[in-house]
Amino acid sequence: MKARVQVMLKAGVLDPQGEAVRHALGSLGFDGVEGVRQGKVIELDLAESDPEAARGQVTEMCEKLLANTVIESYQIEIG
Amino acid sequence: MKARVQVMLKAGVLDPQGEAVRHALGSLGFDGVEGVRQGKVIELDLAESDPEAARGQVTEMCEKLLANTVIESYQIEIG
Repeated sequence: MKARVQVMLKAGVLDPQGEAVRHALGSLGFDGVEGVRQGKVIELDLAESDPEAARGQVTEMCEKLLANTVIESYQIEIG
Repeated sequence: MKARVQVMLKAGVLDPQGEAVRHALGSLGFDGVEGVRQGKVIELDLAESDPEAARGQVTEMCEKLLANTVIESYQIEIG
């Protein structure tokens, strides 16, 4: 079973990487960029075939490793 | 206008980061993880209000900066 996790910084948390990308885009002549937020996307191939069990496992993976839940939020897509 | 870009390594390109995550998950006791691919997601706030024009700009941003098109592929969502 496939699962996809998107991890983004929580609103209000400074995103230096996003700012760096915005400045770089500006220097390349893209001046209409008002904001950039950058995060991670993680695609997982799981042996688990039950969607609910898979969601439970991936949630636990996010809480333990994939996301720093103090400053990041995550979204899980199963299947 | 909002745009979202997902950048992933092309199939067949070795993903050391994904492998590192897989090993870490294994050491945390998640043994049903058969594969992990990690990429970037970039959320952009654009001054542009026309969807097609926005798609054109973001495509150009991907080609010039956001993706290394030799080893990475990108997907763009507008709006």
